[in-house]
Amino acid sequence: MTTDAVDTIRPERGRREFAEVMTFPAPEDAGPVIADGLLDFVFAQIWTRPGLTRRERRFITLACVADADAEQPIVEHVYAALNSGEVSITEMREAVLHFAVYAGWPKASRLNMVVDQQWERINQQRGQQVPPPEPLLPLPTPSDPEARLTSGEQCFMDVNCLPYYPDRDDPYQGAGILNFVFGEMWQRPGLGMKERRLITVACVAFQDAPYPIMSHVYAALKSRDLSFTEMDEFALHFAAYSGWPKASYLSQVIAEQKPRVQAEWHAEDEKIS
Amino acid sequence: MTTDAVDTIRPERGRREFAEVMTFPAPEDAGPVIADGLLDFVFAQIWTRPGLTRRERRFITLACVADADAEQPIVEHVYAALNSGEVSITEMREAVLHFAVYAGWPKASRLNMVVDQQWERINQQRGQQVPPPEPLLPLPTPSDPEARLTSGEQCFMDVNCLPYYPDRDDPYQGAGILNFVFGEMWQRPGLGMKERRLITVACVAFQDAPYPIMSHVYAALKSRDLSFTEMDEFALHFAAYSGWPKASYLSQVIAEQKPRVQAEWHAEDEKIS
Amino acid sequence: MTTDAVDTIRPERGRREFAEVMTFPAPEDAGPVIADGLLDFVFAQIWTRPGLTRRERRFITLACVADADAEQPIVEHVYAALNSGEVSITEMREAVLHFAVYAGWPKASRLNMVVDQQWERINQQRGQQVPPPEPLLPLPTPSDPEARLTSGEQCFMDVNCLPYYPDRDDPYQGAGILNFVFGEMWQRPGLGMKERRLITVACVAFQDAPYPIMSHVYAALKSRDLSFTEMDEFALHFAAYSGWPKASYLSQVIAEQKPRVQAEWHAEDEKIS
Repeated sequence: MTTDAVDTIRPERGRREFAEVMTFPAPEDAGPVIADGLLDFVFAQIWTRPGLTRRERRFITLACVADADAEQPIVEHVYAALNSGEVSITEMREAVLHFAVYAGWPKASRLNMVVDQQWERINQQRGQQVPPPEPLLPLPTPSDPEARLTSGEQCFMDVNCLPYYPDRDDPYQGAGILNFVFGEMWQRPGLGMKERRLITVACVAFQDAPYPIMSHVYAALKSRDLSFTEMDEFALHFAAYSGWPKASYLSQVIAEQKPRVQAEWHAEDEKIS
Repeated sequence: MTTDAVDTIRPERGRREFAEVMTFPAPEDAGPVIADGLLDFVFAQIWTRPGLTRRERRFITLACVADADAEQPIVEHVYAALNSGEVSITEMREAVLHFAVYAGWPKASRLNMVVDQQWERINQQRGQQVPPPEPLLPLPTPSDPEARLTSGEQCFMDVNCLPYYPDRDDPYQGAGILNFVFGEMWQRPGLGMKERRLITVACVAFQDAPYPIMSHVYAALKSRDLSFTEMDEFALHFAAYSGWPKASYLSQVIAEQKPRVQAEWHAEDEKIS
Repeated sequence: MTTDAVDTIRPERGRREFAEVMTFPAPEDAGPVIADGLLDFVFAQIWTRPGLTRRERRFITLACVADADAEQPIVEHVYAALNSGEVSITEMREAVLHFAVYAGWPKASRLNMVVDQQWERINQQRGQQVPPPEPLLPLPTPSDPEARLTSGEQCFMDVNCLPYYPDRDDPYQGAGILNFVFGEMWQRPGLGMKERRLITVACVAFQDAPYPIMSHVYAALKSRDLSFTEMDEFALHFAAYSGWPKASYLSQVIAEQKPRVQAEWHAEDEKIS
């Protein structure tokens, strides 16, 4: 953590960082939550850290605030991400779909409404018409159920870095996971793999189910989509937005998965040489 | 509520109801949480109430415990639902898929694992082989994207009791809601509409997004899939399993939607006569 | 926030505070989450603040970690609260029952198991037998349903600082709120009113339902069970354990309720004089 010799600099740094991230000034009046917490810690000490770019931190933050159901933070972070130009409207809309799968459609439905409203507000502020949306069809994946399932099985193995895929004759796994989540959603263009990893790990971390946390932390590291340093940094950013207890569990899983991934990389290098 | 003149009867009633619902005996040793809370209130005073059948209460409970991430209650309620014979394995598996959509795939992934384990345990206890799963294919819905979206649009209107459907040129709405959630998931056989309503209302109620809560409470009542009395009873059962604050909000929404639904029914009757 | 002229003191202060709060030493090895986050921020800068006692912070923390479902933090904070002697086993058990009502039984059921295990572990470490639990019966509240509802109505008004109570002829309000939550749970001995307030406000804040957040913040302030300063401090502590988005909403509600409460106090003073 970067530190200041003189602590009075920190609140100022918090306000500056807030304004840069949020694209509007920090609130003036402030109780301990805002002054000591949000500005002095979250903005001055978390958002300014190296290890993840500001744009990358936005995807984690968007998932966390949308999970937390707090209206104002959702509105402000959606606005800031789009208004800063760091997240395009196409990426934002794909992010909502990805979030829907990993956090549940009701929370995604609210997030999607906020995206519509804030995108309109931004365009209004700029004296622009809201540009027409991109057409849904044609879908990027095969329509034939067998072909779609086959592509879903391949995508499942690629994303999860696993040599097998689940049995399709189970509604959750077949109709859900293979047919839609990996047969369609993960294969859509419009959002990069690293961004999908950031959203996924945030969602599994606040959803608390142990196996998905383990498997998505493993895959994000194993695929090299997130470096070890980035993953550690992820856990700290996540702690601020979803609380220390969940971050503490995530952190423990990261510590367990690192040696596993390293051992596997090592074994693969041996095999090659 | 049925009541006892003498309080010492209540704990006994709680133990009896627990054993009937859970298919195994209540824990003997008991601090205030188990004795005064779980047995005396949740089992003696909630599960025994009229208004919803025990089977219907199971679907609400399964969604709530799976959302709450507490391992033991998930295991016990999945076991009890299957072991009692009140929920078939086919229904349970569809319930997991439905839950995945409304509560997020990570929590559903854990639930699905528990279902596999408990189904195997039950079959073992009975000295039976686990029966082979039902095949996924053929899917019950059209493969052609345009046909699927069209059927999703119709299903969206039917389920939500709305005269319109969302614009498809938005990934969340098009690729997600119309193409999969209503174009496929809600149309699957294996789980009745009332059971889907129970799971959906539970999930939107713990997901906290206001618009989905309103729209699914409205639709459950408007469709007559849940009566007003059943919905009130739902809120009480839900309170026990997901906490009073969320139930309080749900209860408020129910109170708001009832007169709306009644006014609409009245207007429709007028039109007919 | 108390600050240090030299930042290198902070990690040391974090380790010291961790050891005092948790009753065991801080983890040695540390990625950014533990070192920069948990020790340097949560322990060095939050737990050391004035405004709430360490014992009071424990009740907030217990509710937050139990809600967050992270096994290790639940185990550690339950152990620390009991082992420090700052929370008695009777208080802890009542706290679990109170938590069950406001966060739902599944999460409470897990918490209760952890309490049993840690209480046994502590007694073992001390070479003691686990003392027998206090008997449930007789219940502190009337058995006669009418008398119990009447006492629930009075308790509802007292706790919520409201001049009215909800209609009993609604399952959620009657069988739930009046009969059990206020007719029984809030009236139980074994846990003080201030501690009940701390748990309740934590639970409504992470449960996200707007009306309960507003009403319980209002009542905690209006009753003078929590001072304005304590409530602000609450929001900061809560931010660390349940994340900034939820804390940010709580903070906003606090800011809105303070002038309302002050105006009402002022009006009451006028009336008296």
